[in-house]
Amino acid sequence: MTVTPINLSEKLALFDDYWRPRVIAEMNDYQIKLVKFQGEFAWHAHADTDELFLVLSGAMKIMFRDGVMDLSAGEMCVVPKGVEHKPLAPQACHVLLVEPRGVVNTGDSSSELTAENDVWI
Amino acid sequence: MTVTPINLSEKLALFDDYWRPRVIAEMNDYQIKLVKFQGEFAWHAHADTDELFLVLSGAMKIMFRDGVMDLSAGEMCVVPKGVEHKPLAPQACHVLLVEPRGVVNTGDSSSELTAENDVWI
Repeated sequence: MTVTPINLSEKLALFDDYWRPRVIAEMNDYQIKLVKFQGEFAWHAHADTDELFLVLSGAMKIMFRDGVMDLSAGEMCVVPKGVEHKPLAPQACHVLLVEPRGVVNTGDSSSELTAENDVWI
Repeated sequence: MTVTPINLSEKLALFDDYWRPRVIAEMNDYQIKLVKFQGEFAWHAHADTDELFLVLSGAMKIMFRDGVMDLSAGEMCVVPKGVEHKPLAPQACHVLLVEPRGVVNTGDSSSELTAENDVWI
Protein backbone atom coordinates (compact mmCIF):
# COMPACT_ATOMS: atom_id res chain seq x y z
CA MET A 1 0.00 0.00 0.00
CA THR A 2 1.17 3.52 -0.69
CA VAL A 3 1.06 4.73 2.87
CA THR A 4 2.28 3.11 6.08
CA PRO A 5 1.13 3.93 9.60
CA ILE A 6 3.75 5.13 12.08
CA ASN A 7 3.36 4.13 15.71
CA LEU A 8 4.92 6.76 17.96
CA SER A 9 5.49 4.44 20.94
CA GLU A 10 7.22 1.87 18.76
CA LYS A 11 9.48 4.55 17.32
CA LEU A 12 10.25 6.00 20.76
CA ALA A 13 11.33 2.54 21.94
CA LEU A 14 14.10 2.53 19.32
CA PHE A 15 16.35 5.04 21.06
CA ASP A 16 17.08 6.19 24.58
CA ASP A 17 19.44 9.12 24.34
CA TYR A 18 18.42 12.71 25.00
CA TRP A 19 18.34 15.81 22.82
CA ARG A 20 18.99 13.89 19.60
CA PRO A 21 15.95 14.14 17.30
CA ARG A 22 15.08 11.21 15.02
CA VAL A 23 13.13 11.72 11.82
CA ILE A 24 10.07 9.50 11.45
CA ALA A 25 8.32 11.04 8.45
CA GLU A 26 8.40 13.79 5.87
CA MET A 27 5.50 15.92 4.66
CA ASN A 28 6.45 18.03 1.66
CA ASP A 29 9.74 19.63 2.72
CA TYR A 30 9.00 19.31 6.42
CA GLN A 31 10.15 16.61 8.79
CA ILE A 32 8.38 15.05 11.75
CA LYS A 33 10.85 14.13 14.47
CA LEU A 34 10.77 12.43 17.85
CA VAL A 35 13.11 13.47 20.62
CA LYS A 36 13.59 12.71 24.29
CA PHE A 37 14.45 15.57 26.59
CA GLN A 38 16.01 15.39 30.04
CA GLY A 39 18.09 18.05 31.70
CA GLU A 40 18.84 21.43 30.18
CA PHE A 41 19.45 22.31 26.57
CA ALA A 42 21.29 25.34 25.17
CA TRP A 43 19.89 28.78 24.49
CA HIS A 44 19.38 29.09 20.74
CA ALA A 45 17.14 30.44 18.01
CA HIS A 46 16.24 29.35 14.50
CA ALA A 47 16.61 32.43 12.33
CA ASP A 48 14.66 31.09 9.37
CA THR A 49 11.85 28.98 10.73
CA ASP A 50 9.18 28.49 13.35
CA GLU A 51 9.39 25.24 15.31
CA LEU A 52 6.54 23.09 16.64
CA PHE A 53 6.83 21.20 19.96
CA LEU A 54 4.12 18.67 20.88
CA VAL A 55 4.62 16.89 24.21
CA LEU A 56 3.68 13.20 23.97
CA SER A 57 4.51 12.20 27.54
CA GLY A 58 6.02 13.85 30.59
CA ALA A 59 6.49 17.57 30.96
CA MET A 60 9.02 20.16 29.88
CA LYS A 61 9.68 23.85 30.15
CA ILE A 62 10.80 26.29 27.53
CA MET A 63 12.65 29.32 28.81
CA PHE A 64 12.28 32.52 26.82
CA ARG A 65 14.02 35.79 27.51
CA ASP A 66 10.70 37.12 28.85
CA GLY A 67 9.43 34.15 30.82
CA VAL A 68 9.15 30.39 31.26
CA MET A 69 6.47 28.21 29.68
CA ASP A 70 5.33 24.87 31.07
CA LEU A 71 4.32 22.27 28.54
CA SER A 72 2.84 18.89 29.52
CA ALA A 73 1.63 15.82 27.63
CA GLY A 74 -1.15 16.82 25.28
CA GLU A 75 0.11 20.37 24.93
CA MET A 76 1.99 22.02 22.09
CA CYS A 77 3.48 25.35 21.12
CA VAL A 78 5.05 27.02 18.14
CA VAL A 79 8.26 28.92 18.81
CA PRO A 80 8.46 31.71 16.22
CA LYS A 81 11.52 32.11 14.06
CA GLY A 82 14.26 34.17 15.64
CA VAL A 83 12.96 33.80 19.19
CA GLU A 84 15.64 32.66 21.62
CA HIS A 85 14.57 29.67 23.68
CA LYS A 86 16.06 27.05 25.98
CA PRO A 87 14.18 23.78 26.47
CA LEU A 88 14.59 21.86 29.70
CA ALA A 89 13.00 18.88 31.36
CA PRO A 90 13.53 17.90 34.99
CA GLN A 91 12.24 14.38 34.17
CA ALA A 92 12.32 12.49 30.89
CA CYS A 93 9.91 13.97 28.38
CA HIS A 94 8.98 12.71 24.91
CA VAL A 95 8.33 15.31 22.25
CA LEU A 96 7.23 15.40 18.63
CA LEU A 97 8.81 18.17 16.54
CA VAL A 98 7.75 19.53 13.17
CA GLU A 99 10.18 21.71 11.26
CA PRO A 100 11.57 22.12 7.76
CA ARG A 101 14.07 19.55 6.49
CA GLY A 102 17.58 20.65 7.38
CA VAL A 103 16.92 22.36 10.71
CA VAL A 104 19.68 21.68 13.24
CA ASN A 105 18.66 21.20 16.86
CA THR A 106 20.88 23.92 18.28
CA GLY A 107 19.96 26.48 15.61
CA ASP A 108 22.46 29.34 15.67
CA SER A 109 24.38 28.01 18.70
CA SER A 110 26.57 25.04 17.75
CA SER A 111 27.96 23.17 20.75
CA GLU A 112 28.50 19.66 22.00
CA LEU A 113 24.70 19.46 22.12
CA THR A 114 24.46 19.83 18.34
CA ALA A 115 23.05 16.55 17.06
CA GLU A 116 23.63 14.87 13.73
CA ASN A 117 20.83 15.99 11.46
CA ASP A 118 18.46 13.92 9.34
CA VAL A 119 18.81 10.70 11.33
CA TRP A 120 15.87 8.42 10.50
CA ILE A 121 14.40 5.63 12.55
CA MET B 1 5.28 36.12 26.86
CA THR B 2 5.94 35.61 23.17
CA VAL B 3 4.64 32.06 23.01
CA THR B 4 1.51 30.49 24.47
CA PRO B 5 0.94 26.80 25.15
CA ILE B 6 -1.97 25.12 23.38
CA ASN B 7 -3.81 22.37 25.24
CA LEU B 8 -5.28 19.90 22.74
CA SER B 9 -8.03 18.60 25.06
CA GLU B 10 -9.19 22.12 25.86
CA LYS B 11 -9.33 22.95 22.16
CA LEU B 12 -11.19 19.72 21.34
CA ALA B 13 -13.83 20.59 23.95
CA LEU B 14 -14.71 23.74 21.98
CA PHE B 15 -16.53 21.96 19.14
CA ASP B 16 -18.47 18.77 18.60
CA ASP B 17 -19.23 18.53 14.90
CA TYR B 18 -17.50 16.10 12.59
CA TRP B 19 -15.27 16.55 9.54
CA ARG B 20 -14.83 20.30 10.10
CA PRO B 21 -11.20 21.07 10.90
CA ARG B 22 -10.36 23.92 13.27
CA VAL B 23 -7.03 25.72 13.13
CA ILE B 24 -5.18 25.92 16.45
CA ALA B 25 -1.75 27.18 15.35
CA GLU B 26 0.42 28.18 12.45
CA MET B 27 4.04 27.29 11.85
CA ASN B 28 5.55 29.22 8.94
CA ASP B 29 2.93 28.78 6.18
CA TYR B 30 1.56 25.56 7.65
CA GLN B 31 -1.47 25.13 9.86
CA ILE B 32 -2.08 22.72 12.70
CA LYS B 33 -5.72 21.68 12.85
CA LEU B 34 -7.94 19.57 15.06
CA VAL B 35 -10.83 17.60 13.63
CA LYS B 36 -13.32 15.03 14.85
CA PHE B 37 -14.17 12.16 12.55
CA GLN B 38 -17.21 9.89 12.69
CA GLY B 39 -18.78 8.08 9.78
CA GLU B 40 -17.47 8.15 6.24
CA PHE B 41 -15.82 11.01 4.42
CA ALA B 42 -15.55 11.50 0.64
CA TRP B 43 -12.90 10.13 -1.68
CA HIS B 44 -10.53 12.95 -2.52
CA ALA B 45 -6.91 13.89 -3.15
CA HIS B 46 -4.81 16.98 -2.57
CA ALA B 47 -2.95 17.60 -5.81
CA ASP B 48 -0.37 19.98 -4.38
CA THR B 49 0.45 18.80 -0.90
CA ASP B 50 1.07 15.89 1.42
CA GLU B 51 -1.18 15.72 4.50
CA LEU B 52 -0.31 14.55 8.00
CA PHE B 53 -2.86 12.69 10.17
CA LEU B 54 -2.04 12.07 13.85
CA VAL B 55 -4.71 10.23 15.84
CA LEU B 56 -5.11 11.69 19.34
CA SER B 57 -7.92 9.42 20.56
CA GLY B 58 -10.08 6.68 19.10
CA ALA B 59 -9.37 4.93 15.83
CA MET B 60 -9.94 5.60 12.16
CA LYS B 61 -9.33 4.00 8.81
CA ILE B 62 -8.07 5.53 5.62
CA MET B 63 -9.14 3.78 2.46
CA PHE B 64 -6.75 3.96 -0.48
CA ARG B 65 -7.34 2.57 -3.93
CA ASP B 66 -4.94 -0.25 -3.09
CA GLY B 67 -5.95 -1.05 0.48
CA VAL B 68 -7.23 0.08 3.85
CA MET B 69 -5.05 1.41 6.66
CA ASP B 70 -5.99 1.30 10.34
CA LEU B 71 -4.80 4.19 12.47
CA SER B 72 -5.27 4.33 16.24
CA ALA B 73 -4.42 6.79 19.00
CA GLY B 74 -0.69 7.38 19.03
CA GLU B 75 -0.30 6.57 15.35
CA MET B 76 0.20 8.89 12.39
CA CYS B 77 0.65 8.79 8.65
CA VAL B 78 1.48 11.11 5.80
CA VAL B 79 -0.78 10.84 2.76
CA PRO B 80 1.33 11.87 -0.26
CA LYS B 81 0.11 14.56 -2.62
CA GLY B 82 -2.15 13.28 -5.34
CA VAL B 83 -3.03 10.02 -3.59
CA GLU B 84 -6.76 9.40 -3.43
CA HIS B 85 -7.98 8.59 0.05
CA LYS B 86 -11.20 8.31 2.01
CA PRO B 87 -11.09 8.66 5.80
CA LEU B 88 -13.70 6.92 7.90
CA ALA B 89 -14.28 6.26 11.57
CA PRO B 90 -16.86 3.83 12.94
CA GLN B 91 -16.64 5.59 16.33
CA ALA B 92 -15.70 9.17 17.13
CA CYS B 93 -12.02 9.80 16.55
CA HIS B 94 -9.97 12.92 17.29
CA VAL B 95 -7.23 13.80 14.86
CA LEU B 96 -4.48 16.42 14.52
CA LEU B 97 -3.75 17.51 10.96
CA VAL B 98 -0.75 19.39 9.59
CA GLU B 99 -0.97 20.88 6.13
CA PRO B 100 -0.18 24.12 4.31
CA ARG B 101 -2.41 27.13 4.93
CA GLY B 102 -5.29 27.12 2.47
CA VAL B 103 -5.84 23.38 2.08
CA VAL B 104 -9.54 22.50 1.83
CA ASN B 105 -10.72 19.33 3.55
CA THR B 106 -12.25 17.74 0.47
CA GLY B 107 -9.31 18.57 -1.79
CA ASP B 108 -10.35 18.14 -5.43
CA SER B 109 -13.86 16.86 -4.60
CA SER B 110 -16.13 19.65 -3.44
CA SER B 111 -19.37 18.43 -1.88
CA GLU B 112 -21.64 19.07 1.06
CA LEU B 113 -18.74 17.74 3.14
CA THR B 114 -16.53 20.66 2.12
CA ALA B 115 -15.89 22.66 5.29
CA GLU B 116 -15.24 26.35 5.64
CA ASN B 117 -11.50 26.82 5.61
CA ASP B 118 -9.25 28.67 8.06
CA VAL B 119 -11.65 28.52 11.03
CA TRP B 120 -9.68 29.18 14.21
CA ILE B 121 -10.49 28.16 17.74
